Amino acid sequence: MIVEVIAVGTELLLGQIVNTNASWIGARLAEHGFDAHHQVVVGDNLGRLTEAIRVALGRADATIITGGIGPTPDDLTRQAMSAATGRPLVFNEAYAQELRARWAAMGRAFPENNLQQAEYLEGGEQLPNPKGTAPGLCSEHDGKLLFALPGVPPEMQLLLTDHVIPRLRRASGDTSVLISRVVRTWGRGESAVAELLDDLYRASTNPSIAYLASAGEIKVRISAKAESTDAAERLIGPVEAEVRDRLGSSVFGTDEETIEEVVLRELEQRGWSIGTAESMTAGLVAGRLTARPGSSKVVRGGAVTYSTDLKESVLGVGRDIIDTHGVVSAETALAMAAGARRLLDADVAVAVTGSAGPDPQEQPPGTVVLAVETPEDARARTLKLPGDRERVRTYATTAALHLVRLAVRGHWWHG
Amino acid sequence: MIVEVIAVGTELLLGQIVNTNASWIGARLAEHGFDAHHQVVVGDNLGRLTEAIRVALGRADATIITGGIGPTPDDLTRQAMSAATGRPLVFNEAYAQELRARWAAMGRAFPENNLQQAEYLEGGEQLPNPKGTAPGLCSEHDGKLLFALPGVPPEMQLLLTDHVIPRLRRASGDTSVLISRVVRTWGRGESAVAELLDDLYRASTNPSIAYLASAGEIKVRISAKAESTDAAERLIGPVEAEVRDRLGSSVFGTDEETIEEVVLRELEQRGWSIGTAESMTAGLVAGRLTARPGSSKVVRGGAVTYSTDLKESVLGVGRDIIDTHGVVSAETALAMAAGARRLLDADVAVAVTGSAGPDPQEQPPGTVVLAVETPEDARARTLKLPGDRERVRTYATTAALHLVRLAVRGHWWHG
Repeated sequence: MIVEVIAVGTELLLGQIVNTNASWIGARLAEHGFDAHHQVVVGDNLGRLTEAIRVALGRADATIITGGIGPTPDDLTRQAMSAATGRPLVFNEAYAQELRARWAAMGRAFPENNLQQAEYLEGGEQLPNPKGTAPGLCSEHDGKLLFALPGVPPEMQLLLTDHVIPRLRRASGDTSVLISRVVRTWGRGESAVAELLDDLYRASTNPSIAYLASAGEIKVRISAKAESTDAAERLIGPVEAEVRDRLGSSVFGTDEETIEEVVLRELEQRGWSIGTAESMTAGLVAGRLTARPGSSKVVRGGAVTYSTDLKESVLGVGRDIIDTHGVVSAETALAMAAGARRLLDADVAVAVTGSAGPDPQEQPPGTVVLAVETPEDARARTLKLPGDRERVRTYATTAALHLVRLAVRGHWWHG
Repeated sequence: MIVEVIAVGTELLLGQIVNTNASWIGARLAEHGFDAHHQVVVGDNLGRLTEAIRVALGRADATIITGGIGPTPDDLTRQAMSAATGRPLVFNEAYAQELRARWAAMGRAFPENNLQQAEYLEGGEQLPNPKGTAPGLCSEHDGKLLFALPGVPPEMQLLLTDHVIPRLRRASGDTSVLISRVVRTWGRGESAVAELLDDLYRASTNPSIAYLASAGEIKVRISAKAESTDAAERLIGPVEAEVRDRLGSSVFGTDEETIEEVVLRELEQRGWSIGTAESMTAGLVAGRLTARPGSSKVVRGGAVTYSTDLKESVLGVGRDIIDTHGVVSAETALAMAAGARRLLDADVAVAVTGSAGPDPQEQPPGTVVLAVETPEDARARTLKLPGDRERVRTYATTAALHLVRLAVRGHWWHG
């Protein structure tokens, strides 16, 4: 089944916004096994949009339009759908009344141009949009499906997931459900993960295994198709267990879980607070730890000791340690962590020191030394990270969070 | 002159990468006054790519293809150009030898598939690519221009700027040069900036004025067309001076300058160091200040006092101040800044406290109190920022950097 995506909006052509909708839809279609041959962008122009829809209906089995279904005069998707298919627009009086009621409830005057959002193609249907005022549209033409979705990404994503994908799957004759589980790992490269799972990967058809690398983490996606959610889960279960077993402590989370969430949860479960001592990352670890609401239950604070003398005066790192071992050393990182625990009255402290580049600081750029001290133990680890200053700082921040997780679990670090 | 962009690559259709090339090209074309009616994405498929080129040659005055000109077997853009135009590919022996010489210089075996990068359309030309091995292509067909550029963004951008835009301008009969100056401002909203410049904006044709809003900053772009760079600069000069005069101290930089760069430069000029005291932003201000190489000349370090008691124990904020005025108050922010100057032995300190949300902390979410202490003065300011936790933290970080700039200049803050 071939699906074409048409994104509508002059702001896309002018480069004022990037067409992330098309790539997001492309990724979802690929996950579900649909083919994509073309993506098209057209401006807010009735003639060109009509022609683009006509071409797509001619060469694809289904067409998804995003954008141009709002209330303003340059929202022309409904008219273009009508012109391309030769079908008139009809008016949903009930939805018009619902819109009027919403404005009345806010005590505000109703802008009449909102009413065009109550129009849809005769013989088709409206797809309810709980996040906005513009419902999606869906209709069928000579066996081909035509959808229109809002251009606002969260609204588009909701309607695509809840309405478009299920209809495409039904139309393709596929009544099965597709379920995915993502096992998130850190600490092994993609090739090392792939090697450990090689026989599973080769044998995998249903469930299938895929690897996704992003910012130092490797995600293993296990997807199964079956006649029901339960049956798909039963297919995934044993493969997921085997994957987790082989990857061991490098597995840190499931599906959408982030390392920040995992670290905060594990600390909270143990009743431990955390503090940071940062040199090279200069606050980025503390910034990530506090990105989520509720982090104040666990995060005490941090010391950014960018200057060497502050490592002594603020964190109490001995001058002799720095003179003997250098600023970028396990000894200094451990002393920073110990000092942060004291200064911040924290149960756990994580310390980062290193050379972010481009100019070397004692060690070659990309050298990062991390240390974690818990009430039970203290360890340091040196990493060599590739890339420019920004990448080294970002990866070092992520690595620090992962080492906290391992330390809190008492696993420390493998490999 | 209508220009169409075709991006080539199955990875775009699958949503593995986002089509930022099309938006970047769209923005450049718009700047130079060219029209865009369509953007198209096709996969690595000879038939569909050929058809897309044929369609574009039929409806646009110029076509720019990105991607598919590398050395691998799925790089099909050259063959598709040949099929769409009916013109054969010819081989540039000199370029082939240059490629062989590059590999020889690295002491590595030459992969023969690199040789397809020496091919180009008969009657056309190759556009030299100093950043990669795939030269761009350029040819003319019945008065219409056809370009192919690498898909790698920096290579594409260089060739577009240096070769494609000048050729498009020549073909459109426009021999003038277009120069832009961006005046970067912070502290006034877009409508306030627009109001102050209203008569200039209305009168502006050459130079023209445009507004761009991003992350709390408003950029004023002044663009002039003239027969030479000097003549364009002379047109921009008086308008730029007037814009700067009217916007006063809200102007902080020019063209690509960031607030981080400006703050570090101004501090270095005065021989002042800086430290941070952060609660709500929890390290993000220190992280931004140290994003650039060389920041260690100016940045001392920071204290992340996320817990209230650390404001006392680390920064020495008096218990009475917090009890009387609250954690989110000008008094506490000023005491944090004073404490950070002492603790970190810094000439300047910036403090951030506030309520990022979603749960209120004393004050409604979005309430941010900033304070800056310099050797000469100390001030605090309260902001009410809209949006979710992430947005409030990001905007508060940017605001803190801007207030440091104003404080260091002795301007403090307007309006």
